[in-house]
Amino acid sequence: MDSTKRTVFFISDGTGITAEMMGNSLLTQFDNVQFKKVLTPFVKDEARARAAVDEINLAAEKDGHPPIVFSTLVNDSLESIIKKSQGTCFNFFSIFLQPLEQALGVSSSYSVGKYHSGSASDSYLRRIDAINYALDNDDGQNIKNYEEADIILVGVSRSGKTPSSLYLAMQFGIKAANYPITEEDMEDRSLPRALQPYKQKLFGLTIDAERLSAIRNARRANSRYSSIMRCEDEVRNVEVMLRKASVPILDTTDASVEEIATQILLKTGLKRVDL
Amino acid sequence: MDSTKRTVFFISDGTGITAEMMGNSLLTQFDNVQFKKVLTPFVKDEARARAAVDEINLAAEKDGHPPIVFSTLVNDSLESIIKKSQGTCFNFFSIFLQPLEQALGVSSSYSVGKYHSGSASDSYLRRIDAINYALDNDDGQNIKNYEEADIILVGVSRSGKTPSSLYLAMQFGIKAANYPITEEDMEDRSLPRALQPYKQKLFGLTIDAERLSAIRNARRANSRYSSIMRCEDEVRNVEVMLRKASVPILDTTDASVEEIATQILLKTGLKRVDL
Repeated sequence: MDSTKRTVFFISDGTGITAEMMGNSLLTQFDNVQFKKVLTPFVKDEARARAAVDEINLAAEKDGHPPIVFSTLVNDSLESIIKKSQGTCFNFFSIFLQPLEQALGVSSSYSVGKYHSGSASDSYLRRIDAINYALDNDDGQNIKNYEEADIILVGVSRSGKTPSSLYLAMQFGIKAANYPITEEDMEDRSLPRALQPYKQKLFGLTIDAERLSAIRNARRANSRYSSIMRCEDEVRNVEVMLRKASVPILDTTDASVEEIATQILLKTGLKRVDL
Repeated sequence: MDSTKRTVFFISDGTGITAEMMGNSLLTQFDNVQFKKVLTPFVKDEARARAAVDEINLAAEKDGHPPIVFSTLVNDSLESIIKKSQGTCFNFFSIFLQPLEQALGVSSSYSVGKYHSGSASDSYLRRIDAINYALDNDDGQNIKNYEEADIILVGVSRSGKTPSSLYLAMQFGIKAANYPITEEDMEDRSLPRALQPYKQKLFGLTIDAERLSAIRNARRANSRYSSIMRCEDEVRNVEVMLRKASVPILDTTDASVEEIATQILLKTGLKRVDL
């Protein structure tokens, strides 16, 4: 028996991504507990539900504690199988659906695995399109396609442009190109010629020079590219250039990709899919 | 007053991604209602909470219905401001945290905006690393780096390899290379030489030929590349090749990127971050 560790199950009839996100966002509130997490997706029939119960009960025995079970099962008979396990069950739908039905004045369809499913919806196709766009227009390639961009991220190398443009595409269906400002671009402190026609679409990312140097060092240790002096120069010059051109700037130093992308939406008012 | 439409707010002290995913997964259960969705992230102080209330009340007036409010606010005093709005409020934390505290036998930290925040955690850095890896090893580039891959996705062009490898990286921190099997590769029906040393890491994606043809047509209309005959040939040949080499195959025809990535995890047992 291990009294310091709790096993957590995420059970879903679909991918389990919602169950996991919901569960993890709650678990971050419990710093002092160690969790062992088990994802159990695609629980679509009784056999799979029973297999999940076996796993839960095994963990209960091993841990000496009832496991925590986060479930997004919609099907009542599957959920009732899970509930008979030794886990403490939190079902997302059974808590929220009924009050939501009441608020909306209509019954829900109780259909299974709808979220994150299928590949034929317009918003899904737009997301895939946007991913391809981000890849084709990464790192200053293909500047002839900027007409099509919803936004063009600019900043020094390793300021977070590429992962942010991919996240904007994947999560929000936004076509984000990105253009790295290089030392040559900085010489006359005005926007690179390729960007000038698209000033309205530009969005700057900046980063603390020390953090930038650390990130670059992980990629190319002890190079001029990663030296603190060069990082300081680049960051300062790019900030001056962008301010002069009235391009909005976001500091990415302590921000995750999710936070950067959300801040960009908020500051630009860009329209996204799925909302 | 528009009686067919309901406004939905997603309110969060962080990015709002959890609030939105939770809300949207519930809303998919109501096919017959049209929703207008408003994301209100980074509600970190009373001024922002009051601004959100004004927006909610304005929508209530316009719609002639109380808006639905999904909130992941942790701070009680901010939540109580939102609750005084004319919206019907569903707070995720206030419903689940207390029973979860009870189940775990400890108090929660009630800390704000923790999930999706920060960029310094190990799992976050692994995700960014994996995104860079996926980009460097997309589309059969850089086959010298396959040593480092957790998995190598193989399949015909446009079978879903690139978005899936990016999703595996972004969501799960898995280093996924991808290698397109071309017509030349198919000639002798055995695995391309570059892949042979990494047979254990290969994972095949296949797709219905008609769907493939439609996807390719959107990219290059009426080309040999997108013709149904060529698509049928390629799909059949690749399936034969992969089966002969005992490489697992997943059909991506009706699957979203999220479903493909989750199925891959399930079938390979690959270890991922954050779990």
